[in-house]
Amino acid sequence: MSLAADNVAKSNSKKSAKKREKKLSFPSSAVSRVTVENVEPGFEAGRYPAKACVGDSVSVKADIYADGHDSLRGLLRFRKKGASRWSTTYMQPLVNDRWEGHFEVTELGVYQFTLVAWTDPIASWQKDLHKKVDAGQDVGGDLLEGAALLKDAADSCKGKKSKSLKTFSEKMVSEDLTPEERVSLALSEEITELGADYGKKFDPCSLETVFEVVVDPERARFGAWYEMFPRSASSIEGEHGTFRDMAKQLPRIASMGFNVLYLPPIHPIGKSFRKGPNNSLECSADDPGSPWAIGSSEGGHKSIHPALGTFDDFAYLVDEAQEHGIDIALDIALQCSPDHPYVKQHPEWFKHRADGSIKYAENPPKKYQDIYPLDFSNPDWKGLWAECLDIFMFWIERGVRIFRVDNPHTKPYRFWEWVIAEVKREHPDIIFLSEAFTRPKIMHHLALSGFTQSYTYFTWRNAKQELIDYFTELTQPPAVHYMRPNLFVNTPDILHAYLQTGGKAAFKIRAALAATLGASYGIYGPPFELCVRQSVNGSEEYLNSEKYQVRHWDFDSPDNISDFITRLNSIRNNNPALHRNYRLQFHRIDNENLLCYSKSTEDGRNIIVTVVNLDPNWTQSGWLELPLESFGLDNKASFEVRDLLNDAVYLWQGRTNFVMLDPTVSPAHVFQIQQQHS
Amino acid sequence: MSLAADNVAKSNSKKSAKKREKKLSFPSSAVSRVTVENVEPGFEAGRYPAKACVGDSVSVKADIYADGHDSLRGLLRFRKKGASRWSTTYMQPLVNDRWEGHFEVTELGVYQFTLVAWTDPIASWQKDLHKKVDAGQDVGGDLLEGAALLKDAADSCKGKKSKSLKTFSEKMVSEDLTPEERVSLALSEEITELGADYGKKFDPCSLETVFEVVVDPERARFGAWYEMFPRSASSIEGEHGTFRDMAKQLPRIASMGFNVLYLPPIHPIGKSFRKGPNNSLECSADDPGSPWAIGSSEGGHKSIHPALGTFDDFAYLVDEAQEHGIDIALDIALQCSPDHPYVKQHPEWFKHRADGSIKYAENPPKKYQDIYPLDFSNPDWKGLWAECLDIFMFWIERGVRIFRVDNPHTKPYRFWEWVIAEVKREHPDIIFLSEAFTRPKIMHHLALSGFTQSYTYFTWRNAKQELIDYFTELTQPPAVHYMRPNLFVNTPDILHAYLQTGGKAAFKIRAALAATLGASYGIYGPPFELCVRQSVNGSEEYLNSEKYQVRHWDFDSPDNISDFITRLNSIRNNNPALHRNYRLQFHRIDNENLLCYSKSTEDGRNIIVTVVNLDPNWTQSGWLELPLESFGLDNKASFEVRDLLNDAVYLWQGRTNFVMLDPTVSPAHVFQIQQQHS
Repeated sequence: MSLAADNVAKSNSKKSAKKREKKLSFPSSAVSRVTVENVEPGFEAGRYPAKACVGDSVSVKADIYADGHDSLRGLLRFRKKGASRWSTTYMQPLVNDRWEGHFEVTELGVYQFTLVAWTDPIASWQKDLHKKVDAGQDVGGDLLEGAALLKDAADSCKGKKSKSLKTFSEKMVSEDLTPEERVSLALSEEITELGADYGKKFDPCSLETVFEVVVDPERARFGAWYEMFPRSASSIEGEHGTFRDMAKQLPRIASMGFNVLYLPPIHPIGKSFRKGPNNSLECSADDPGSPWAIGSSEGGHKSIHPALGTFDDFAYLVDEAQEHGIDIALDIALQCSPDHPYVKQHPEWFKHRADGSIKYAENPPKKYQDIYPLDFSNPDWKGLWAECLDIFMFWIERGVRIFRVDNPHTKPYRFWEWVIAEVKREHPDIIFLSEAFTRPKIMHHLALSGFTQSYTYFTWRNAKQELIDYFTELTQPPAVHYMRPNLFVNTPDILHAYLQTGGKAAFKIRAALAATLGASYGIYGPPFELCVRQSVNGSEEYLNSEKYQVRHWDFDSPDNISDFITRLNSIRNNNPALHRNYRLQFHRIDNENLLCYSKSTEDGRNIIVTVVNLDPNWTQSGWLELPLESFGLDNKASFEVRDLLNDAVYLWQGRTNFVMLDPTVSPAHVFQIQQQHS
Repeated sequence: MSLAADNVAKSNSKKSAKKREKKLSFPSSAVSRVTVENVEPGFEAGRYPAKACVGDSVSVKADIYADGHDSLRGLLRFRKKGASRWSTTYMQPLVNDRWEGHFEVTELGVYQFTLVAWTDPIASWQKDLHKKVDAGQDVGGDLLEGAALLKDAADSCKGKKSKSLKTFSEKMVSEDLTPEERVSLALSEEITELGADYGKKFDPCSLETVFEVVVDPERARFGAWYEMFPRSASSIEGEHGTFRDMAKQLPRIASMGFNVLYLPPIHPIGKSFRKGPNNSLECSADDPGSPWAIGSSEGGHKSIHPALGTFDDFAYLVDEAQEHGIDIALDIALQCSPDHPYVKQHPEWFKHRADGSIKYAENPPKKYQDIYPLDFSNPDWKGLWAECLDIFMFWIERGVRIFRVDNPHTKPYRFWEWVIAEVKREHPDIIFLSEAFTRPKIMHHLALSGFTQSYTYFTWRNAKQELIDYFTELTQPPAVHYMRPNLFVNTPDILHAYLQTGGKAAFKIRAALAATLGASYGIYGPPFELCVRQSVNGSEEYLNSEKYQVRHWDFDSPDNISDFITRLNSIRNNNPALHRNYRLQFHRIDNENLLCYSKSTEDGRNIIVTVVNLDPNWTQSGWLELPLESFGLDNKASFEVRDLLNDAVYLWQGRTNFVMLDPTVSPAHVFQIQQQHS
C-alpha cells in the first residue's frame, strides 16, 4: 500500500503546488543571494554622516557573505556629493566575512559612498580549479567551462580588454599549449582582474542607502586652543581690555604653540538684572556683567561690545592672529538679555507668561532673570532659525572660521542639524565646537547632528580606569567616526577639585594628558598657565571669575607653567602620531597611579609612548609592557626611547621596562621610539 | 564708528535674513524635539523580527530624550498583526535616557509594535512646581499656569475625564482651598495620569518603523530532543527498523523525559553512487545508503522509504508519540540523489555542465556524486520554491510540527525567509531548526531570517573561558532576541575528541552542561546514552556510522548513562528557571576546571546554580562566589542548597562557599536554592 498511497499523495501535491504557486507572492529580487550589512561608518541606517578631514583615506567596512561557496566581489562606490559619476574601488576581505575598502577625500565638503557586491563566476572557477589541480584531479572539463566564462566576459566589453579575454578563452582549449601552460594561464592574476571587471556579476546586491562623510579642514581634528577674555587683556591694572590689547597677547600665545584663540562672547552686555562679582545679584555701575547676557541698546549678536572696540579693531585682531598662524574662535550663545533688540523687534521669538511678560530662564529652583531663552518652536520659528543662521554668516563674512557654541543641548537637535548643514553648504571649512556638558547620549547625538568637535567629560576623569574607559569609548567605533573630542583642561565654569588641591604638578599632569590623549585640546589660558586654583567655597567656580569681572594676570608669577605647555605643544606639532586619536592604545603598567598609552602613525614611522603619573604628590614607579611587535620591533629588541619633554634617552630592552616619575620634577614621560638603523 | 558700522551691518543683515529665509529649505517637522532611537529588540531598522513565545511579556527598550528640561512621555503601541486597533502602554524611564515598556503576547503569530514620545506640559509643570515648593518660592503664578494647562486638557476630551480636569483646573485658583491644599492637589498622581492621557502632546515623535515579534509555541524555547535513526530501531539484530519498531522505543524515550523525537530523512534513498559503510565509495547490494541521498524510483521528498513502512505506519508513529507527549521532528534536506523524480520531471531545477550532464555536489577537491544540489536561482525558481514550500505543507498535513533543516546555509537566505514566513502564515506553531555549522555571521543571519532554533558551536566549546564567552554572546542582546540555541551534545557528524577520550564522565559532563546552559538541548540518542566513542581514525566521524549502516544498540550495556540523563530531564521539567536562557549568569569560581552559573525566574522563586567539573579525569574543588543580593538573600545569609542530582542538602553561609566534584561519582552539582522561611 505504501507506493500507492505515495503516488496519490504525489499527484495531489503536484496539482496543489501549481495552484499554490499562482497564489503565492514571491520576493522581487529572489536571485540576490549576497548580503551586505553592518556598514561602518554608518549610523542609524545612513541618517547621519561620518566625519573625515581633507587628505584622509576613509576606511569603509561591511559584512559581505552569501550562501554556498562562490567567490564574492565587493565594490566601494564613492564620489563628491553632486558629482555625476561614481568612482569605484574593490573591497578586500579581512576575517570573519568582514570586508574593507578605502577612498581618499581630497576636498572640503560632503562625500558619498555606497556598496555593491556580487558572486564572481570567474574567480569561483579559478578557486575550484586551483584546488583540483592541487589534488591532482583531471581539469579538462574545468578548462572548457572557463573558456565559456571568458568568452561571455569578452562579449560584455569592447576593445583591448575584449580582445584579451577572447584570446584567453581560446587558449583555455588551445592545442598549442600544454595542459600545464593552460592551467597556469587560467590561474593568472590577469584573468582574475579582467574577470572581476568584465565577468558576469551574479546575484548583485546594491545597497539602497547612500552614506555620507563630511570632510573638514585639518584643524577640525588637530589643534591646541587657548581661551581668553579680551576684557582682561589690558596690560594696565583695572582697565577694560580691548581687541587691540588682545592682539598684543598674540605673540605670547603663538610662541606657546597654540593654533586657536577662543574668545567668550564679544557682544554688547545686558544691563537688566546684570550680575555682579561672583555671580552676585548685587551689581554696581562699574561691574562689566556676564558676556553671556547678550544684547543691549548697543546691539545684539551681530554687534560688538563698545568697550572691546570696533569692527575695524576686530578685523585687525583677526588679521594679526592669522599672521601668527592662529584662528579666532567666537562663542555663539543663542540667548538674550532682557535688553536685546530682538526682545522688542521679535517678542514672538520668546515664551510668555499668562500676564504677557517674557519668561526668563529657569531651572527650578534656580532663576536666571538676566537671560531670556529663545523659543525655537515659536510660530515664527522659520524667521528665528533664519536669523540664527544669519548670525553665523555675519561673523563668517568677518573672517571667523570657528564657532564655539554655548549650551547647544538646550536647543532642538534638528535646528543644529539644519543650521550647521546650511552654513557648511556655503562654507565647508567652518568648525563648530559643541559646548554640551550633559548626559552622554545627548552629547553623542549633537555630534551626529553635525557638530565638528565636542567638549567632553575629560575634566572629571582623573583616575586611571576612568581615563582608560572613557578614551576607549571616544577613540573606538562608532564614536571615533562622528565625535571629535576637544579636551579642555579647565573652563571658566570648571575648576576641578583635582586642580584646586594638587598644586602645580596637577596642572602639568592634566596638560600632559590632554595634549597627548587628544588631537584637539584646550586651556582656559591665563588661569591655567598660572595655576590659579582659588574657588568659590570649594565648588568648581573660580573665585573672582572673569565671567563677572575684569582681571589682570601676572605672567611673571612663579606658578607660571608656560614653558611646560610650550614644550607639549612643540611635541604635538612635531609628531604626526599625536594629530589623530584613532590609533590610541593603552598599555599595561603595574601601578594604579601610572597611566601608559601610545599613539602611532599608520606607517609606523612615528610612535609616541606617554607615561603619566596621576598622583600629583608622590613619586611613582612601575613596569610597563609594550606591544613591540605592533610597533614593528622584535619582542626581544633593544631600542632607544627619547623623552621629548627633557631629551633624556633611555636604552630599553624587550617588552617590559621600568619607569619612575617624581611629580615635582616632571609628572610625565612623552617618549618617542627611536627608529632602528639595522 | 562702532555703532554706525553696527547699524549698517544690522540693517543689511535684516534684509539679507529675510531674503535668505525665502530661499531656505527647512526641515518639515521642525517642532519635533524628541528623539527615539536604538529600539530593542530591533534589527537592521526593523527589517527582521524578534522572537517570543506564547505567554511571554515582551520587553521593549529605547533611548528617548529631548533638548531642555521638559518631562517626557513614551508610549508603546502594540497589536497582533492584522488587528485594526493598537493597544498602548506607557514606557518607564530606566537610567541614562533608556526607557522600557512591556506587552503580553497571548497568541501564536506575528505581533507588531512601535513607539511614540512627546513632551508632557502638565508633568513638566508639576516637576517645576515641586522644586519651587521645596525651595519655599512663591508659586501663585505657577498655579495659574497649571489651571490653564488643565483647562486645555479638559477641552481635549469628553465625559467624566473632562469634568474631572475642569474641576481640577478651577480648584488651582479656587479661594475655597488653602494654598497648601491647592499645591497638594496640583502635585497629585491623579493629575499626572490625566495629564499624560489628555494633556497637550508637544513635540510628538512617532517612529515610522513598525517592529515585529514572531510568537512561537513554548516548545520553540524549551525542549529536550532525542535523535534516532528508525533504520536501527528493530529489536532483531541485522533487521532494518521500521516506524512500528520506532514506536516501540517511545516509552523508553518518554520515560527519560524527552519532548521531541527527531528522525533523519525518511524518504526513499538513491541507488546511483550509493555510499557503503564508513562513507566508502564501494557499496554492496545490502547496504542501505545514506538517508540524505534523497529520492529514487520509489519517490522523493513527499514519499516514504518503503523499508520504513507506509504512510499509515508513519501516522501511527506520530499518534503514538503524541500519546507519550513527544513531537516528531522531521529532517528536511533540500537536495536530490541522481535517481530523484525531480531530475527527470524538472531537469531545469539543477545546474548543468557544458556537455548537458547535471552537476553533482562538489567542494573541491571533495566530490559528492550521490547528491545533486538544487539550483534555487534557476529560471523556474518560483516553481522550485513553491514545490519546496509544498514539501513542508505536505508533512504538516501529516502531523509534523517540527522540521530540522539540513544545511540551510547552502541555499539562499531569502528563500528561507520566504518559505518560513509562508508556512507560519498558515501554521504559526511550526518550528524550524537550522542545521548550519558554518561561519558565525551566517548562523546569525539564518536565525534573523526566520529559523525558530539554531544548532550551535556547543560541541566545540569545552574549556571554561570559551563556554563563558560563547554563552554570554548567545544569551545577551541582540542575539538573545532572535537566536534560540539548541545545544546538541553530539550528532551523527560530530563525535568530539572530548567524548572520544574522556570516558563516561565526559558524556555526563557534556549532558549536564547542555541540559542546564540551554533551555533547548538534544542528544543523538543511542550512541550518546551508551557512551559510544569509537571514531574513524580519531576524526569526528563515528565508526560504522548509522548514516551508512543499520545498527543494533545494546541498551543493557554497562556504559548506559540513561539514569543520569533521566534525572537531568526531570530537573529541567520541574524547574522553570531552566526553561529560558536570558537570565543566565556566570559566577566566579577559583578553579579553571570548574564552571559555575545560575539561571533564575524573574520572580526569584526558582534559582538553579550549576557547578560542572570540566575535567573528566580528576577531582576538582574550589570556592565559588554567588551574588546573593540578586537572589533576594542577604550577603551574609545562611541558606540551604539541594543538589537535585542526588538530593544532598548543604548549609551554606554568605557569598563564598566550597565545592568538590569527583567525576567518577558525579561531574556536576545542580543546586536549587531553597526558599527561606523567615
